[in-house]
Amino acid sequence: MDDRPLIAITIGDPAGVGPEVVLKALARPHLHEICTPLVIGDAALLDLAARRLKLSTGLARISSLDQLRSSPQSAVVFHVPGLDLGSFQPGSLTADFGQASLDYLNCAIDFALDGKVAAIATGPINKAALHLAGSPYRGHTQLLADRCGVERVSMMLLSPGRLTEPRWLRVTHATTHIALKEVATSLTPEMLRSTIRLTNECLLTLGIETPRLAVAGLNPHAGDEGVMGDEEIRWIHPTVMQSRAEGINVSGPLPADTVFLRAVHGEFDAVVALYHDQGHIAVKMHGFENAVNLTLGLPIIRTSVDHGTAFDIAWQGKANEASMVAAIELAAAIATNPQSRSR
Amino acid sequence: MDDRPLIAITIGDPAGVGPEVVLKALARPHLHEICTPLVIGDAALLDLAARRLKLSTGLARISSLDQLRSSPQSAVVFHVPGLDLGSFQPGSLTADFGQASLDYLNCAIDFALDGKVAAIATGPINKAALHLAGSPYRGHTQLLADRCGVERVSMMLLSPGRLTEPRWLRVTHATTHIALKEVATSLTPEMLRSTIRLTNECLLTLGIETPRLAVAGLNPHAGDEGVMGDEEIRWIHPTVMQSRAEGINVSGPLPADTVFLRAVHGEFDAVVALYHDQGHIAVKMHGFENAVNLTLGLPIIRTSVDHGTAFDIAWQGKANEASMVAAIELAAAIATNPQSRSR
Repeated sequence: MDDRPLIAITIGDPAGVGPEVVLKALARPHLHEICTPLVIGDAALLDLAARRLKLSTGLARISSLDQLRSSPQSAVVFHVPGLDLGSFQPGSLTADFGQASLDYLNCAIDFALDGKVAAIATGPINKAALHLAGSPYRGHTQLLADRCGVERVSMMLLSPGRLTEPRWLRVTHATTHIALKEVATSLTPEMLRSTIRLTNECLLTLGIETPRLAVAGLNPHAGDEGVMGDEEIRWIHPTVMQSRAEGINVSGPLPADTVFLRAVHGEFDAVVALYHDQGHIAVKMHGFENAVNLTLGLPIIRTSVDHGTAFDIAWQGKANEASMVAAIELAAAIATNPQSRSR
Repeated sequence: MDDRPLIAITIGDPAGVGPEVVLKALARPHLHEICTPLVIGDAALLDLAARRLKLSTGLARISSLDQLRSSPQSAVVFHVPGLDLGSFQPGSLTADFGQASLDYLNCAIDFALDGKVAAIATGPINKAALHLAGSPYRGHTQLLADRCGVERVSMMLLSPGRLTEPRWLRVTHATTHIALKEVATSLTPEMLRSTIRLTNECLLTLGIETPRLAVAGLNPHAGDEGVMGDEEIRWIHPTVMQSRAEGINVSGPLPADTVFLRAVHGEFDAVVALYHDQGHIAVKMHGFENAVNLTLGLPIIRTSVDHGTAFDIAWQGKANEASMVAAIELAAAIATNPQSRSR
C-alpha cells in the first residue's frame, strides 16, 4: 500500500449502467494516480460485463481486505457473493438486484466506518428494485444517514464546468424529491438554516477558508419586493440574516436565474437552491455530464454519480462514465485534503 | 435607403441602463452591416449619456421618417420630445421617465404596425415607473398585445451559447411572473397547449422547417411515475399527446434538469418551460449575458433585452450591452428571413 487513498466504489444495481461506468472509469489511467480504487460488487458480474462490452477489467479479485497488501498496484474488486448470474438480464428490475445493491453499499459503509477506506463513491441504485427487495429506503441518502447515526444530511451537487477556464459550481438543496406544488409549503426556516450551515461546513472541508454562500430566491426575481410571492420578505431573508449573525458569509435571497451565473463568475463559492430542479438545472447546464454529488453531514466521505440506473441503455456500451470519473476524483480529492482528514 | 432592414430600437427608461447599452451596441460595426438602426428616444438625453459615459453617439437626429432618405448610412435617432433634462438624475424612479419609456415604445409600435420599420428591439423599462405614470401596464408584453389586438402572446427566451461550437437554446414559458406556490394551480392545459402552438409557429418563422419541441416536467424527474406530483400523468402528458395529434412534433414531459441539455445537444429545437425560473435558469446558464427575448404571437417582430433597468448601476459605464446586441441581431435576422416576411 502507498499514500494513495483507498476509495470504495460500489457498482450499484447489477442490471443498470453502474458496472459499465465503473469499468470505463477504471480505464482512465489518471484515476490510479490519485487513488487506489476498491470496487465493491460481484466479481463474476464484472467479468461478464467486461466480456459483453469488450472492456478490460484488470481487476484483481479479493475477498478480504488483508489481501490488499499482496495485490498489485492496479484496481481490485472486493467480491460480495450472493448473485445468481444464471439467468442474468441487463435492464431487469428484480428484488435480487435491489438486495445486491444494498449489500454492496452496506459493505462500503462498513469499511468507511471502520476506517478501512478513505471514502466511498457510489454507483446508481434503483428505487423500485429496493422496494421489491423489501427495503424501507428509496435511495442511498437516508440509509447512509441511518447507518452513520446522523439526523440531517444534505446533497451538494457539483460540476467542474466546461468553459476554457472552468470553474466549479457547487449547489446544495434545501428540499429535494418533493412535488413542486409542495415546495413553498414544505420548506421551513430550519431546513434552510441547516442547509446553509452544512454548506458552509462542507466548503471549509473542501479547503475554502472563507466561504461565500448565496441563497437562491423561491419566486421569479426573488419575489420582486413581494409582488410575486412574499416568502422572501416573510422568512427567507430573515433566515439568511440569522445565519449571517451566526458568522456565515451568506447573501440572498437573490434572483435564481442569475445567482448561479454569479457563482460561476466567482462571486460565490456555493449556492443554496430551494428546490430540486432549481439547482439541478443550473448544475447540469453548467457541467453537462460531469456533475457529481457529495453528501454533507456524514462522518464519512461519500460522493456519487448524479444519474440513475438507466435500465433502457444498460449493458449496451452507451453509458457515459464522466460522472463516475468525477465522483472518484472528488472522493480522492477530499480524502487527501488535510482539512477533511482532520474532521 | 438600402436592403438592410430598418430596426426600431427603444432606449427604455431614460434613468436606467437602456441609453448606455444602446449606445454601446451601436458602437459594434457589424450591427450596421445587418440593419439600419433607428433609435427611438430623446436625442438630447442620448447626447448627455454619450458625454457622461465618454461614448460616441454618431447619431443623426431626425424628427420625421422622411428625413431617413437624406440621412447618412450611420444610425439615426428619432427624437421623441417631452423630457425635461434640467434636473436629470440617473437611477431615479419617476413618473416622467415611466411616461417617456411608454412614449418611445408606442412610437416604435406605430412604426411597426404601419410597416415603416421591419422590427422592434426594446430596451428595459421599469414596472414601478410605469405605475407612477398611471399606466395600467406592468411591462412591455401586455401593452404590445393590446396595441396589436391579439389575446395570447408568449415570450421565447433565447441564447446563442458560449461553447466553441455554440448552439442556440430556445425556451418558451407557459407561465411567467407568478409566485412559485401558484404555478401548479395556475397552469392549465389550455395555457400549455397554446404555448406549444406558439412555440411551433415561431420555430417555423425562424426558418426551422420541421420543428422538434420538448415540454419540461413540472416536478423533479418529471414526477417519477407520479411519486413526486401527479400533474405529469394527470394532464401534462395528455396535453402533449393532444398537440402531437394536431401535427406538432412535441415530446414530454421530460425531466427538467436534462431536457435543456438535450436541446443544446441538438435533440430539440425549443423547450417549453412550465414556469419562469425553470426556463430562465437554463437559458442564462447557457448564454451568460447573451440571452434575448422574442415575443411570439404578435403581427410584428419584437425582440428585447432580457435584463431590467438596473438603476443601481445606471449611467456608470458598467452595463453590459451583450443582450441589446443580441436583441438587435435577432430582430434583423428574423426581418431578413423570407419565412418571417411572408407571415
